[in-house]
Amino acid sequence: MSAAPKTIAIVGSGALGSYYGAKLARQGADVRFLMRADLEAVRRDGLKVREKGEEWHVQGQAFGSVAEIGPVDLVVIGLKTTANADLERLIPPLLHEKTLLLTLQNGLGNEEILAQRWGAERVLGGLCFVCLNRVAPGVIEHYGHGTLSLGEFGRAPMERTQAIGAMFSNAGVETQVVENLITERWRKLVWNIPFNGLSIATGGRTCDQLLADEGVNAQVRALMLETIAAAGALGHAIPQNFADYQIERTYSMGAYKPSSMIDWQLGRAVEVESIWGEPWRQGNAAGVALPRLELLYRLLQQLTQRS
Amino acid sequence: MSAAPKTIAIVGSGALGSYYGAKLARQGADVRFLMRADLEAVRRDGLKVREKGEEWHVQGQAFGSVAEIGPVDLVVIGLKTTANADLERLIPPLLHEKTLLLTLQNGLGNEEILAQRWGAERVLGGLCFVCLNRVAPGVIEHYGHGTLSLGEFGRAPMERTQAIGAMFSNAGVETQVVENLITERWRKLVWNIPFNGLSIATGGRTCDQLLADEGVNAQVRALMLETIAAAGALGHAIPQNFADYQIERTYSMGAYKPSSMIDWQLGRAVEVESIWGEPWRQGNAAGVALPRLELLYRLLQQLTQRS
Repeated sequence: MSAAPKTIAIVGSGALGSYYGAKLARQGADVRFLMRADLEAVRRDGLKVREKGEEWHVQGQAFGSVAEIGPVDLVVIGLKTTANADLERLIPPLLHEKTLLLTLQNGLGNEEILAQRWGAERVLGGLCFVCLNRVAPGVIEHYGHGTLSLGEFGRAPMERTQAIGAMFSNAGVETQVVENLITERWRKLVWNIPFNGLSIATGGRTCDQLLADEGVNAQVRALMLETIAAAGALGHAIPQNFADYQIERTYSMGAYKPSSMIDWQLGRAVEVESIWGEPWRQGNAAGVALPRLELLYRLLQQLTQRS
Repeated sequence: MSAAPKTIAIVGSGALGSYYGAKLARQGADVRFLMRADLEAVRRDGLKVREKGEEWHVQGQAFGSVAEIGPVDLVVIGLKTTANADLERLIPPLLHEKTLLLTLQNGLGNEEILAQRWGAERVLGGLCFVCLNRVAPGVIEHYGHGTLSLGEFGRAPMERTQAIGAMFSNAGVETQVVENLITERWRKLVWNIPFNGLSIATGGRTCDQLLADEGVNAQVRALMLETIAAAGALGHAIPQNFADYQIERTYSMGAYKPSSMIDWQLGRAVEVESIWGEPWRQGNAAGVALPRLELLYRLLQQLTQRS
């Protein structure tokens, strides 16, 4: 399939899935949202998006089950990775022979799950750099950014990648098609592993607080260098000075709260396996010493256990 | 001075100082307690110790200031190491030319502080393996153990070491004089660093919970091996299988709460510098890679900051 997909299902219609789905629907695409908590509100009032000082609205096709949605050309997956076990039940009813699966989820290992179960040739992934919040059922607030980095799983971009990228671009989402998706995931992890992790493990420090303490600042850098070493051993070359760049950039973010810290403070599930567990497992299997990442991962498992 | 000290001051009369001081006083020694919170109660009612199902009592000489105590032959220091800055003020009025300083405090670096300020030749140290609680002003409950490992700072035992050891033994404290005090401190740290540290960093897990999780159990062992490596580089040889022995031994302790975890849960100061900071600094200065210890130390600093 080289043309853009004609029918799209959004699985995991939290802030992320709802926002990108609404953008596509507004552009005229046939977008079908799988909804749970917001189902009634969206059926009644549609989806509302507030961005750049204005509010816009799409009616949105909201469904209560994947069986009602049926097979589509593209499934966009916005589930929290902590709910990945649900994919086994959610994906099959949405598949025809050529259905593509695009995961916009965080961290590492999500494309692998889809590829192992439903075939690597179907799988694409995207990294979202966007600040969103679901402020009420069916109401999404977009605070800034919104870039989507889109790529194939385990191969270079193809015609279909460009077509899907163009579809998002036309819908007003700044999209870049990337040569190596997993390299991009590792680059994002270089920031997420230390900042999301240490913000929780220190009991709730914001980015500026983590950087202000010399000893913790050194742990941020050391965790970044471990992540870069793991990525390198797995074939994803990232220069060491990328750590300096990421730290520099973070100073300007002030009292920023990483998303995992917000999840943790609100008692929501934290994506421990995809952000820390899977990077540690893959790097460890490649023979890289990752002592700080391993310790942080094990602490986060304990700190986020509901018990 | 080869005979036992005749006059003894107890500085830091919490459970530890009060208990050992009361044992010595009961045996007839001239023991002078520096007290703050418990001063009035002890002046009125003396010190009470409950142990082995009975309660005994000594009148105890309680003082409100070191100036009132004056120079003594032996100062026993039971202060929390987080109050070490107070030593500068507390020690000088207690000194005559031959006064000995015996620190019973936790962790590393306490003998060094005393030696640097008042001369290494005065300094002894002791490790206490004892379960105590101050249950009311002037009332100490002794739950078990009580062994004291006594040694010289930076040299082998001398006649005076044996004399002080005998003094404690005669007072009913099982005492062993050790060849190398700092080696013993490192051996104790092999347990304290992982268990006291991880119990806080995991948000309050007991020893059995830390061991029951395979991933955390591996961190316990890895932290023990880092500690053994640091000790080895500093001239304190500890065999690697000491880690296995310590882990085995801990299984039998069940839902034990390490003392630092209790301090932390009760909002008391945690001895972060003496248990994690100083071992990391010394091992790091000796060129040993201590990534887990460093990360744990930095997390504990943040978690125990009152802010």
